[in-house]
Amino acid sequence: MAEFDLIARIRSCAGSDRRDVVLGIGDDAAVLSVEPGMQLVACVDTLNAGVHFPVDTQPDALGWKALAVNLSDLAAMGAQPCWALLSLSLPSAETPSVDELILGLTHLARLHGMALVGGDTTRGPLSLTVTALGQVPAGTALVRSGARVGDAIVVTGTLGDAAAGLMLAMGQVAAPSRAAGEMLRKRLDYPTPRIAAGTAMRGIASACIDVSDGLLADLGHVCAASGVGVQIDIEAVPLSAEILSVLPRGVAQRLALSGGDDYELCVAVPRDHLETALAALRGVGCAPHIVGRVTAEPGVQVLDAAGMDVTPRQRGYEHFS
Amino acid sequence: MAEFDLIARIRSCAGSDRRDVVLGIGDDAAVLSVEPGMQLVACVDTLNAGVHFPVDTQPDALGWKALAVNLSDLAAMGAQPCWALLSLSLPSAETPSVDELILGLTHLARLHGMALVGGDTTRGPLSLTVTALGQVPAGTALVRSGARVGDAIVVTGTLGDAAAGLMLAMGQVAAPSRAAGEMLRKRLDYPTPRIAAGTAMRGIASACIDVSDGLLADLGHVCAASGVGVQIDIEAVPLSAEILSVLPRGVAQRLALSGGDDYELCVAVPRDHLETALAALRGVGCAPHIVGRVTAEPGVQVLDAAGMDVTPRQRGYEHFS
Repeated sequence: MAEFDLIARIRSCAGSDRRDVVLGIGDDAAVLSVEPGMQLVACVDTLNAGVHFPVDTQPDALGWKALAVNLSDLAAMGAQPCWALLSLSLPSAETPSVDELILGLTHLARLHGMALVGGDTTRGPLSLTVTALGQVPAGTALVRSGARVGDAIVVTGTLGDAAAGLMLAMGQVAAPSRAAGEMLRKRLDYPTPRIAAGTAMRGIASACIDVSDGLLADLGHVCAASGVGVQIDIEAVPLSAEILSVLPRGVAQRLALSGGDDYELCVAVPRDHLETALAALRGVGCAPHIVGRVTAEPGVQVLDAAGMDVTPRQRGYEHFS
Repeated sequence: MAEFDLIARIRSCAGSDRRDVVLGIGDDAAVLSVEPGMQLVACVDTLNAGVHFPVDTQPDALGWKALAVNLSDLAAMGAQPCWALLSLSLPSAETPSVDELILGLTHLARLHGMALVGGDTTRGPLSLTVTALGQVPAGTALVRSGARVGDAIVVTGTLGDAAAGLMLAMGQVAAPSRAAGEMLRKRLDYPTPRIAAGTAMRGIASACIDVSDGLLADLGHVCAASGVGVQIDIEAVPLSAEILSVLPRGVAQRLALSGGDDYELCVAVPRDHLETALAALRGVGCAPHIVGRVTAEPGVQVLDAAGMDVTPRQRGYEHFS
């Protein structure tokens, strides 16, 4: 199969009835209409074989996750996803799994009403780069830099599950039940970008980030951008029944702090917006938890139930470290 | 050096005073203002080590070319480039050449007044994926599908030079003079995206494409999209003095038809706009040549001076073929 057949196949999966796609796949570039009063929100993320996913990952999960990690970034900005571009490097176009990969990506795109509007296919080691484009009403994007002393820190769901799923995938632990194993692996392979939670936090949260590198590392970015610190109550960090069925509580807590890849949102919320925020997050199907508070003291500190500092040294995942 | 140091270094090179960058590098996504009355134009292209460039390519050329190939796509749409995102996979952040790579990219970005507004850095085989975002007045984008029977086919400059530069880089030919060798290699490594030519063709050209895969292959896309055919006069295809100093005329002509990587624009122009088009292209520093005409007969045909069909079988570069 030749490159242009592959593009035709991608095009056939990329259907969308968005009226703001003036010109989609098939020209030198896509032409798109941004709504008046809206700002464009743009991000890009790459998944490389052997770096970002275990080799036994299902092809449709690769496609799903490559888009999901980008949608999570749009969610963290409070943006509504609109369009995506895919750059796909494949060892060979004969790779039997290409169709599944595309279907995984376009499945998630359809769930969010997005159109796949362009991209690039090249020969090379297996790699997926997705560019996600969204829109947000002008001036309402959630940023990392708005956290203020006294704000509550809220997460939209349980943490550590994806890291536990990776340990399962690597054979480092075993799940006591098939259901628990599948749930954790699904958290790793098919993360749910919290789009509705992000848009619900516009005008309510003071800062927002998605938990991709690990809660402590990501809160570190918020602290640096906002010029504040954060205290986390380790006992308040939500853990799933599944992770606790697989790992001792202490290990599960460590993964929840530093594991990464969970793609929950972590928001700073002024105290007088807190009930509104929690209700709004529940209203979009999240299980929000208050896990800490913004402090004047710089840095991210973890406290146990007795108020003792139990901050781990390992903060999260970094490439090249 | 850690991932976040690398991002900080990229950020320091990415400075721009564009007022439409609401939020650039350093948050989960960039926030950008599209001007009222303008449409967004978006494309992405990946360069992989060992596939898209010879291993001895200068690092700053990699950065330049990764952006240039995308700007060429924007040029082919008649769009003005505004913003770029870079996803960079590196075997190690210690790669001494990373800075040069970034400087090559940001140098070209500055020449076009673009801002680098975001991206991703990951570990993996050397690969650069650039997303380029531009704007075009609503309804004026140049497309592949507008060519009409009788239109003239115009190219903005000499063809085949990049392919000859690749032959030099591979040691398949030798240049009789250092200047000729350098010119051809520069056409391969530092292509000039024809942005001003593209914007000048708005409202004048009926169709446009950039010559990336090779003139015949790219014209094949125009023919398919427009439902027409094209006749090329081989003797009218412009060749540089440099390519003719390195290769016999027949070989140079073959490279000009099928070589790719030249990033000139190829436009279809209605006859009554032809003088206007040629003057406009000269006005932006191009040396336009009429190389053929649009016909009703489907397909791309190459004619010699006597009108004989000399269409080569090899159309251009395809991945996976």
